[in-house]
Amino acid sequence: MPARPTIAITLGDPAGIGPELALRAALDPAVLALCLPVLIGDRALLARVGAALGLPVPTAVVEPAVPGFVADAIMPGRVQAAAGAAGAAWVAAAVDGCLAGTYAAMVTGPLNKAALAAAGVPFPGHTELLAARCAVTGEVMMLHHADLAVALVTVHQSLASVPAAITPGRIVHVGRLLAQALRRLREPRDTPPRLAVLGLNPHAGEGGLFGDEERAIVPAVAELLQLGIDVDGPLPPDSAFTPDARARYDGWVCMYHDQGLIPFKALAFDQGVNVTLGLPIVRTSPDHGTAFDIAWRGVARHSSLVAAIALAARLSAP
Amino acid sequence: MPARPTIAITLGDPAGIGPELALRAALDPAVLALCLPVLIGDRALLARVGAALGLPVPTAVVEPAVPGFVADAIMPGRVQAAAGAAGAAWVAAAVDGCLAGTYAAMVTGPLNKAALAAAGVPFPGHTELLAARCAVTGEVMMLHHADLAVALVTVHQSLASVPAAITPGRIVHVGRLLAQALRRLREPRDTPPRLAVLGLNPHAGEGGLFGDEERAIVPAVAELLQLGIDVDGPLPPDSAFTPDARARYDGWVCMYHDQGLIPFKALAFDQGVNVTLGLPIVRTSPDHGTAFDIAWRGVARHSSLVAAIALAARLSAP
Repeated sequence: MPARPTIAITLGDPAGIGPELALRAALDPAVLALCLPVLIGDRALLARVGAALGLPVPTAVVEPAVPGFVADAIMPGRVQAAAGAAGAAWVAAAVDGCLAGTYAAMVTGPLNKAALAAAGVPFPGHTELLAARCAVTGEVMMLHHADLAVALVTVHQSLASVPAAITPGRIVHVGRLLAQALRRLREPRDTPPRLAVLGLNPHAGEGGLFGDEERAIVPAVAELLQLGIDVDGPLPPDSAFTPDARARYDGWVCMYHDQGLIPFKALAFDQGVNVTLGLPIVRTSPDHGTAFDIAWRGVARHSSLVAAIALAARLSAP
Repeated sequence: MPARPTIAITLGDPAGIGPELALRAALDPAVLALCLPVLIGDRALLARVGAALGLPVPTAVVEPAVPGFVADAIMPGRVQAAAGAAGAAWVAAAVDGCLAGTYAAMVTGPLNKAALAAAGVPFPGHTELLAARCAVTGEVMMLHHADLAVALVTVHQSLASVPAAITPGRIVHVGRLLAQALRRLREPRDTPPRLAVLGLNPHAGEGGLFGDEERAIVPAVAELLQLGIDVDGPLPPDSAFTPDARARYDGWVCMYHDQGLIPFKALAFDQGVNVTLGLPIVRTSPDHGTAFDIAWRGVARHSSLVAAIALAARLSAP
């Protein structure tokens, strides 16, 4: 039996549901069967949350130095600069531990964008924060759930700025990373996945009548085929997620945020796992937010976090 | 018991599955219970298709003059200029009959864009053809299935051209027509529907960080509220079709083709009914194509056409 990997779990924004989910996950036999979980955060904060919910604090807690952080000052369910700063510092520490080989992978609890902004952390979300800490560009956001995996060519930018950002090089990059990740995740492992590459325009442009950005997608599909990746496209976006299409493909290369996330969230609800591809480390997270309205109340369910941990273990397996 | 409405059913492209579906629908007791169906097309063509499939031709067939049309020359499953011209002429005749009050509504069989183009019919599809024949602008495409109804602010145009086409006036127009249609379709009838108006950008612009077209959507939502329509928005598009959101709303005002059609086709498959709002007549159609690969073989199912006829009957009821 192979040794269990050590996986870092960041608490996310301490005022959200992240700390209680991390506590529950670290005590869950299903998680302990998969990995050695290490919580990255603050022991005093975990003790407060644990006391409120009747949960013990596990021994494997790593506490990065966060100047000025006072666990007792955190108010659950509030946007607080101190909470945003701590959440970001814990992510940075987990990245550093992964890069150093201390952890096989990292799983992140949810951050709050307003708290990050209040703390002066200049990133719209985790994905960009991770890429900067790893000192790489070319990160790719993938969402995964059961038989559905979408990867995004463009992410957090205006729709108007998307057409100019659609380049063959970026599409090939995203397609390669998606195929590589799916090979690791398929049963049996290394079975070649079948990818769908979507068009940008309605009806994939209808032969140039409704836009011509598909001219950048066609050569990317050809290059992916030359790389030995089984891929179709550019597909008319509106028929790319029908039941027939879902039976045909294993992964979808989507040109913009909502082209991938609208169908993903319609079909996979909040059970998806967010994976950052293109980093020198393995990182996943549950696809839900901080849920400030129910923070520290013991009603949040940790099943999505467990799914994220399980996916991190599979992606980081040798 | 109210009199049954007379509903015109066009055959669509004669080389596709439209004629056989129309024959089956016109003989279906469920359809006859709802309306008096009148097929708009060519009796000799229907006799050929009927002979191939062992179906009788009903008596209520109206044959518009189509110069040069020879039923025996039509080859099933082929793009033919004569077929495109006939399909368009039958639509025009049905529109004229609706405008004259001969028919309470019209239901259209599928057309083939390539055949239309070969015939020199300068419209990308039915919606535009209908608006031109009715001599109106401001037509709105709605797709309807069970509890899902999406209406499109922009339709057949490049994604790059969408942001400039998002205006408060058009959004209000689409929202009003959608609310009006849903009031007729709700049980009990005239129950006010609840509408979702989507943002254009990811996260509905994240406060202007990812685009600012939501500035045109906010006043439209305010105006719809002032008109007494129950409406939320602009919503982050990716969470507008989750199960929670689907329980909350009855109709969705979508900013572009794929924002509405990707989730609709993911959830409603090919069972949706296409409705053109904003015309002086009632028009619906099944949400499938000509299916040339199976034309005249007797394997196409007419359930979507029956759904379109039933919706036309409900929309045209006094």
